[in-house]
Amino acid sequence: MHTLVLIRHGESTWNQENRFTGWVDIDLTKKGMAQARVAGEALKKAGFDFDLAFTSVLKRAIRSQWLIFEAMDLMWVPIAPHWRLNERHYGALTSLNKADTAERYGAEQARVWHRSFDIPPPPLDRADARTFYDDPRYAALDQSQIPLTECLKDTVNRVLPLWHESIAPAIRSGKRVIINAHGNSIRALIKCLGDISDQSIAGLDIPNGIPIVHELDEELRVLRRYVLDFATEQET
Amino acid sequence: MHTLVLIRHGESTWNQENRFTGWVDIDLTKKGMAQARVAGEALKKAGFDFDLAFTSVLKRAIRSQWLIFEAMDLMWVPIAPHWRLNERHYGALTSLNKADTAERYGAEQARVWHRSFDIPPPPLDRADARTFYDDPRYAALDQSQIPLTECLKDTVNRVLPLWHESIAPAIRSGKRVIINAHGNSIRALIKCLGDISDQSIAGLDIPNGIPIVHELDEELRVLRRYVLDFATEQET
Repeated sequence: MHTLVLIRHGESTWNQENRFTGWVDIDLTKKGMAQARVAGEALKKAGFDFDLAFTSVLKRAIRSQWLIFEAMDLMWVPIAPHWRLNERHYGALTSLNKADTAERYGAEQARVWHRSFDIPPPPLDRADARTFYDDPRYAALDQSQIPLTECLKDTVNRVLPLWHESIAPAIRSGKRVIINAHGNSIRALIKCLGDISDQSIAGLDIPNGIPIVHELDEELRVLRRYVLDFATEQET
Repeated sequence: MHTLVLIRHGESTWNQENRFTGWVDIDLTKKGMAQARVAGEALKKAGFDFDLAFTSVLKRAIRSQWLIFEAMDLMWVPIAPHWRLNERHYGALTSLNKADTAERYGAEQARVWHRSFDIPPPPLDRADARTFYDDPRYAALDQSQIPLTECLKDTVNRVLPLWHESIAPAIRSGKRVIINAHGNSIRALIKCLGDISDQSIAGLDIPNGIPIVHELDEELRVLRRYVLDFATEQET
């Protein structure tokens, strides 16, 4: 049996301001850093151990993973950052707060973009200052790989190659893996596991800094999925 | 032409206490953290950029590298921790301070062990609590790979396979590499570059948190070696 832990980064300053962040590289708040430390302590207390971490290339996920490994005394475990684990790209909504979005596009349309599986927000114009064409993180990519908008389905399709080429083989080889990513790249990873429908996945709530533990069989089918319950863990 | 930056971690609590640390996993002091941040700022200001970092599996090197990449806004650059970059193993001197060592073995003998190329301190007994046989970092190694003592020559021989198999190929492929390691594993890396004699290397001073920049030709021969001069950099 294999164990896979998925965790969304701690609270970021734009989570706090309720802004669509996507690929923008926003750092954690103090609360977000504390959430990551508490998660690391809870994982350690519950007896978890890891051989490999994957993160996005965004600092809110990387810093969260640093803090988790620091709390677990596992700073020496390799961390592999990859752009395919980035948050969903929010297109023209990028950097808007949720009230602005509702005012500009209507609350119902905003809800559809936020929570549907296959309806992307309007794309960024190629000349928009919010594109990521000049970001050195993505310099090795073909420009067509750098999105101008994404629906959750697009994010799933972007995450899948990394799942098949790197993550699933690592788990199958016996490595104990933790992935520190974002609300929608975690939904995408859960889709990779194949047991949740397109309709259900977009509504699945992924809280900041709470480990979602998966017990998987040899074929990486989900035997059990649970949220690590800090209160319970701390009592045992 | 290639560039390779070597840097010793910031000051650790045992550097401050003047104790032989070796493979013991001692963290940075506040001053050591500040040294790493300042080094990162200086590297950024001087226009350095990196595609890959190597570190030991010891937290004083890993945390220093985290702080450097944080200061350079390069948190997304992969960091590869490897046991072969650990500090020289100080054998029976491990955890002693330098005054205790001089009192127990004589100042001259202590100086010989500290500064000779090929004379190791007495080995740890296999039953000594200071061995690393049970450390999960080294669980995948053959017990014969985990030293009980080392002279600098042993450290060079331990570092060489990583140089040939991973570091040199990465540099040759065009990757801009920084290595965050320890006084003696940095001396060993400098030995790998082949331009300093066995007699000279042990006396080469490697200060905490100061980038040592190497400009290398296509065959990785040293064209120029210099210490990044913060004072100068900060004025430009």
